[in-house]
Amino acid sequence: MKLMIQKNELNDAIQQVSKAASTRPAIPILGGIKFEVAHQGLTLTASDTDISIQSFVPVESGERINARIDKPGSVVLPAKFIVEIIKKLPSDEIEIEVGEHFQTRLRSGSSDIQMVGLDPEEFPVLPQMDEHESFAIQGALLKTLIRQTAFAVSTSEQTPVLTGVLWNLQEGRFKFVATDRHRLASRVANVETAPEYRFANVVVAGRTLQEVSRLVPDQGEPVEIVVTDNQILFKIGRVLFYSRLLDGTYPDTSKIIPQQYKTELVLDTRRLTDAIDRAYLMSREEKTNIVRLITLEDGTIEISSSSSELGKVTEQLDAVRIAGEPLRISFNSKYMLDTLKAIDSEQLFIGFNGAMSPIIVKPTEHDHSLHLVLPYRTTG
Amino acid sequence: MKLMIQKNELNDAIQQVSKAASTRPAIPILGGIKFEVAHQGLTLTASDTDISIQSFVPVESGERINARIDKPGSVVLPAKFIVEIIKKLPSDEIEIEVGEHFQTRLRSGSSDIQMVGLDPEEFPVLPQMDEHESFAIQGALLKTLIRQTAFAVSTSEQTPVLTGVLWNLQEGRFKFVATDRHRLASRVANVETAPEYRFANVVVAGRTLQEVSRLVPDQGEPVEIVVTDNQILFKIGRVLFYSRLLDGTYPDTSKIIPQQYKTELVLDTRRLTDAIDRAYLMSREEKTNIVRLITLEDGTIEISSSSSELGKVTEQLDAVRIAGEPLRISFNSKYMLDTLKAIDSEQLFIGFNGAMSPIIVKPTEHDHSLHLVLPYRTTG
Repeated sequence: MKLMIQKNELNDAIQQVSKAASTRPAIPILGGIKFEVAHQGLTLTASDTDISIQSFVPVESGERINARIDKPGSVVLPAKFIVEIIKKLPSDEIEIEVGEHFQTRLRSGSSDIQMVGLDPEEFPVLPQMDEHESFAIQGALLKTLIRQTAFAVSTSEQTPVLTGVLWNLQEGRFKFVATDRHRLASRVANVETAPEYRFANVVVAGRTLQEVSRLVPDQGEPVEIVVTDNQILFKIGRVLFYSRLLDGTYPDTSKIIPQQYKTELVLDTRRLTDAIDRAYLMSREEKTNIVRLITLEDGTIEISSSSSELGKVTEQLDAVRIAGEPLRISFNSKYMLDTLKAIDSEQLFIGFNGAMSPIIVKPTEHDHSLHLVLPYRTTG
Repeated sequence: MKLMIQKNELNDAIQQVSKAASTRPAIPILGGIKFEVAHQGLTLTASDTDISIQSFVPVESGERINARIDKPGSVVLPAKFIVEIIKKLPSDEIEIEVGEHFQTRLRSGSSDIQMVGLDPEEFPVLPQMDEHESFAIQGALLKTLIRQTAFAVSTSEQTPVLTGVLWNLQEGRFKFVATDRHRLASRVANVETAPEYRFANVVVAGRTLQEVSRLVPDQGEPVEIVVTDNQILFKIGRVLFYSRLLDGTYPDTSKIIPQQYKTELVLDTRRLTDAIDRAYLMSREEKTNIVRLITLEDGTIEISSSSSELGKVTEQLDAVRIAGEPLRISFNSKYMLDTLKAIDSEQLFIGFNGAMSPIIVKPTEHDHSLHLVLPYRTTG
């Protein structure tokens, strides 16, 4: 294998794939990036067997020459070192040559680097997927769906399926649900699909979605998605992102969403967020993060928190609308802040069914998001 | 105590003093900020007893009103909470009122915060210093002196005096020396002082200097410095920074600086730094950070490092000047990089007296800096 490649192009592709390389590999090959040179260009792949990312650098893009291929071939090089050294090389061009026993030589300006390469035959094979059925979604919309739900996945491996986001797609209605049993975030969007195309109980790891979100440009061509029984593939421009789907049945959360409320509030999103943020600073001192919300007689609400050692924060807020029974409720301020930051509407609706029932938070401007936070059962 | 104060002014002063508050206080009062209100304005003080920082917010600056004093008095409030809550308060004005038992109330817009204040009588007293003798230095110059030396202090508490920077001042020649026994950094500058004003063996904690550097604006009035037997005071605009001096006698380093060299090099600073940075990436894998420098016959030098698992980096560099005996030497690349980043000259001089003697690094453009890095004793 031998090629000459532009540093920028190589560096971009390495940054794209490197997150799939294992940082503490069980075997050295899983901490590597596979370089495959063919006449069309260079393909880089990294894989920790759960997720695999592949990026392609074509020989030419339009009129720009990215690489010159002297000899096809392949090798696996250690990701950690490659990620850092490439961007620091002195020249804009890098020559890569693989010799016997995968000994690899990188030359750039005054730098001459010899590396112990590994046998590409030992590198994990990418999942074989039937790409017959797929659908596409705008990158910006996919990022929004991820941002508004993935924060609510569980970080505990006790119930692995909850570390992922539940996906359902039916009649072009694409739905994300995430919950860690303390709060729930859901978001729907309309996408164009083939008639009859549908899936249910597909659970995509939160980590996968965060990485996908990082790779999707804010503007650009739509992301193509292929879903099979146990794998998902995202096609993001020249990048292919494969991830194993999570096993297990996702709990049915549809029944815990109430259809009516005993107390309803409409509030300014920014003001409520800021007030709870201040109360959070006090609640944090007690570790429990407990913040209280009380409806007052005069059409306002009061947000408060206290710490035995530090004191008390009290915030009074005008409600845009307040209806139903008076209420005193306590909740985890950190969870509520996460939820409020996912609301993309100037005003929001909060619905309650008493101090022991889930708190429902929704934007007022559209009906695509629904969030839930469980209250604390406190006395007084 | 009662006052109304502009949020920005209060926030700036809190950010200035807060670094002196203890993050894990032995007693709660050391984790606090003392608020003292007099008719002229508000004085804030934080102290962990080693360092103390004080900042003053006058009632007026020029035509701007910063505060309105209703009742003088004082209280100590917890730094960690105060630092975060003040900048998040909703209104540009904050009212602070202290009631019985130092119960303190902060009001700003819709926020009402009650805090458990502490008795200011229990707060550490600032060192009493004879401010009769002092000298001044331009802020930017002081920052340069700190930046070019403080990185080389020891991080080990085994020899506490080496965690500080040695200061000497005589006939207006102000000198900084720092060493951790593996490398040494020194810098001199000329300052204006009263005739006969001098001091020697003053050792200022590295941590103090880093914090002072953070507080000194890039442009502004000169910093005034008062040195006594066991304390130092920096006057930085409205901020007073007190620090205990380190005890002990600083080792005499003057004898280890050679007067002549067997091998002399002049190199481009940027190119040498980049080449060693790349070799460092490889050397890091071996934990020892060993990088080799070899003079070659053709007027170039070779920088190299190797890792048994990863491979080898070789860098060839043209020397601007190369004189004396041929040389092979090994050193810690991390220490050398720190040193090179402190050189403010396009080219630098390196002097050697064989593979076992200290490496001397100096800028070529001026004679104010001198750096030393000990070589590794390696075979081959």
